[in-house]
Amino acid sequence: MFEAAEVGRSVSKKEYERIEPDLQLRLLEAQREAAAAGIPVILIVAGVEGAGKGGVVNRLHTWLDTRGIETSAFWDRTDEESERPPFWRFVRRLPPRGSMAIFFGSWYSEPIVERAFGELGSGRFEKRLDQIAAFERMLVADGALIVKLWFHLPRKEQRKRLKKKDDRTRMPFVRRFAKRYSAFQEASETAIRKTDQGECPWHIVEATDRRYRDLATGYMLLRALRQRLDAEEGVDEPVRHTEVAVPEVATASRTILDHVDLTQSLELDVYDRELAALQDKLSRLSWKAWEQGHTTVAVFEGWDAAGKGGAIRRVTRAIDARVYRVIQVAAPTDEELAHHYLWRFWRQLPRAGQIAIYDRSWYGRVLVERVEGLTQRDDWMRAYGEINDFEESLCENGITLMKFWLHVSPEEQLARFEERQRDPTKRWKITDEDWRNREKRGEYEVAVNEMVTRTSTSHAPWTIVAGEDKRFARAQVVRAFVDRLSEDL
Amino acid sequence: MFEAAEVGRSVSKKEYERIEPDLQLRLLEAQREAAAAGIPVILIVAGVEGAGKGGVVNRLHTWLDTRGIETSAFWDRTDEESERPPFWRFVRRLPPRGSMAIFFGSWYSEPIVERAFGELGSGRFEKRLDQIAAFERMLVADGALIVKLWFHLPRKEQRKRLKKKDDRTRMPFVRRFAKRYSAFQEASETAIRKTDQGECPWHIVEATDRRYRDLATGYMLLRALRQRLDAEEGVDEPVRHTEVAVPEVATASRTILDHVDLTQSLELDVYDRELAALQDKLSRLSWKAWEQGHTTVAVFEGWDAAGKGGAIRRVTRAIDARVYRVIQVAAPTDEELAHHYLWRFWRQLPRAGQIAIYDRSWYGRVLVERVEGLTQRDDWMRAYGEINDFEESLCENGITLMKFWLHVSPEEQLARFEERQRDPTKRWKITDEDWRNREKRGEYEVAVNEMVTRTSTSHAPWTIVAGEDKRFARAQVVRAFVDRLSEDL
Repeated sequence: MFEAAEVGRSVSKKEYERIEPDLQLRLLEAQREAAAAGIPVILIVAGVEGAGKGGVVNRLHTWLDTRGIETSAFWDRTDEESERPPFWRFVRRLPPRGSMAIFFGSWYSEPIVERAFGELGSGRFEKRLDQIAAFERMLVADGALIVKLWFHLPRKEQRKRLKKKDDRTRMPFVRRFAKRYSAFQEASETAIRKTDQGECPWHIVEATDRRYRDLATGYMLLRALRQRLDAEEGVDEPVRHTEVAVPEVATASRTILDHVDLTQSLELDVYDRELAALQDKLSRLSWKAWEQGHTTVAVFEGWDAAGKGGAIRRVTRAIDARVYRVIQVAAPTDEELAHHYLWRFWRQLPRAGQIAIYDRSWYGRVLVERVEGLTQRDDWMRAYGEINDFEESLCENGITLMKFWLHVSPEEQLARFEERQRDPTKRWKITDEDWRNREKRGEYEVAVNEMVTRTSTSHAPWTIVAGEDKRFARAQVVRAFVDRLSEDL
Repeated sequence: MFEAAEVGRSVSKKEYERIEPDLQLRLLEAQREAAAAGIPVILIVAGVEGAGKGGVVNRLHTWLDTRGIETSAFWDRTDEESERPPFWRFVRRLPPRGSMAIFFGSWYSEPIVERAFGELGSGRFEKRLDQIAAFERMLVADGALIVKLWFHLPRKEQRKRLKKKDDRTRMPFVRRFAKRYSAFQEASETAIRKTDQGECPWHIVEATDRRYRDLATGYMLLRALRQRLDAEEGVDEPVRHTEVAVPEVATASRTILDHVDLTQSLELDVYDRELAALQDKLSRLSWKAWEQGHTTVAVFEGWDAAGKGGAIRRVTRAIDARVYRVIQVAAPTDEELAHHYLWRFWRQLPRAGQIAIYDRSWYGRVLVERVEGLTQRDDWMRAYGEINDFEESLCENGITLMKFWLHVSPEEQLARFEERQRDPTKRWKITDEDWRNREKRGEYEVAVNEMVTRTSTSHAPWTIVAGEDKRFARAQVVRAFVDRLSEDL
């Protein structure tokens, strides 16, 4: 989940100075409009120690009109507070209509800290999170706008920062926290996943570069305000309007995909040898899974011409046809359209011991349907949580779930398109739609990045496949099957 | 929670025959409109064994156009079904847009049965319920209408029915279930409370009288359909419109309040003696609570002139003024109006060891605000769940929570109003608003009944006080304090 916040986004000083004045102006305008509309805004500033949450809040104070803002840091509970239920101290700091509250820490801190230190069992932790989710839904239903920002630092960066001697790192608890980086990551991931609701989603901010961190925060707040204001005014296509409102950081930023090393390749003879060995293992594992009644579901998504079909064939060649099924997902049928969008995937779930391979999947909801505007923003935003719930129900049932994104560069994609066009035996593979999709690469990259971030869970992480070299990609996919099944069986 | 379904509602044969033709006509019309509007309707028929769920469904089949209905009974899982996650078998029976599905049992049966037989711990049970709630929210967000009916029988009635020899009672599991009546009640109550959402609330149907049971089912389904259809059409005041749509069963039915024995009274000398003894105990208990840091919250609601003030004074006289506080809840201040409606009650929560007495409370949301139309239907429907969550957070924090409804007959109320009007020292107590409220007694009775049903939880049940005789009522209230605190300290 946090990989997408470790891709090294940064903004140069010059770029920052170019962007900042306009951002501030628009933030002030949005703040004024939200106040006039009587919207209570709650900005939750959370994240790892050392990520500079204090710096972010100071920056917001210089950007915004502080007369409409109350900032609260929730440290140790006071006597007054510990004598009441946990939410009491937050309730008394809730902003009235037309005001903004900035919460440092908030209702997430205590459960996450207690979980990371092992004071809270996983059942009770999840119950607390459910209560938080219900509490937030209650506030949103009453008209509140809740903007939740999670500031992330890679472990190495955190260590480096905490070595510096300053007032903050001298606080004893900061060091105690840093020692439990992994436990905190795990608890944080669970907390974010369980409370990432359509009405108030989480935004993960890469905090390594201060300028990027501050600009991203400003834009996320601005976007949330504008989306809400547009919705109040009944703007026809809020999706378009607000997506366009934050181009600067989007272009300045890198996505998780930029981190894939596309130079990886395999020589033919190495490939042949490796693939044969892997397929042999996969064949044996598939029979073992069948005998044990252990079910497998694999999802393939990726750019057009990234090699999904070829990779799937390398997998299925190793498996008996009675044991697997490839489900080609195209436009839904009439009957499917008459149901919930997950229905058609639910009904294809394999029986015990079988392997189902979805060639494209339920992720269409947050990819093509999002980019093409086929689905309203509210609906696809809600889909992340729905998909996570759906996948959790598979995993709870003991199903092995694998998800692959096949990645190629736009240049390699173009080469493959042109090759297909030239080759009469492959020409049918390429359509006008492929060319149209290609033009929207930028929008798709944003969608893919968000998809991977919001749905890479510990039980069902995404595997990003380096698809520039077909052989490398195919071996990577088959190896992932072998590794995962060896682990789960 | 189930008390409201043990009040002995019944409908005579003559009345039934008068009502049924019109009900059927309106049901058919609503069914047609819902089909035309493309709404998928899910009717969940759940409840205790022997309540006649089969009979209800048969009746619905005669009333409705069965071409648009698919009925599914979820008994033992098939091989096919047990090889997939639990929701799979329900998903494949979900109705397409414009159709209706009647689910016998549904996703609630398994968790409740497993809980009642002790196969499921309370933590895992609650997790299953949370998953169900999320699943239902997902369907509703996609446009589904979910109508959830729980058919209730008192234990005695169930026993009587299961003694009869017929095909159904010969089923072995029916008898096994009946033996665990209490365990089923408890699990069912938890399930209903945790999944009683504003978007798809539960309706509890008293199933003792078959005619009442069938008519109530028909009207609840009709009301749910009409509310949804009105909302689609953007009818201005759906609250009014749809409340008026089901007058017949409402008038034919009795509420939980009709069950209060208002003839109970106390002689003056008995009262004096009892009250003094109770107050002495309460005094000692209040100091003990203070020493232990044990907090108490008491809520008083009731009819105008039912004697709330007098009862509260009998309690507070026993307690040191430093330890208790009476919170008079009147119209909210400007500041309070600028927050969530629960905010003003949250902030009045007492410190450890203190006793807070709310003279009127957060229940105004589902009483006066509902009846006077100050709050939209969606908002007050959602409030039951919000209030249950709020009260659960108090109880989890170890707070003793007591809730009193002071009940008097309309005749006694009138006598007290007139007495107040005559007495110059009391005239200030009575306002035009009191007279106006009195005229809406019927609407208030419906609201009170629903409030008690939906918010009588095992940790915070309502106490209905027989207020016709002031002495009896006061002694009952003080005794409730003594009993509850003795238990909790």
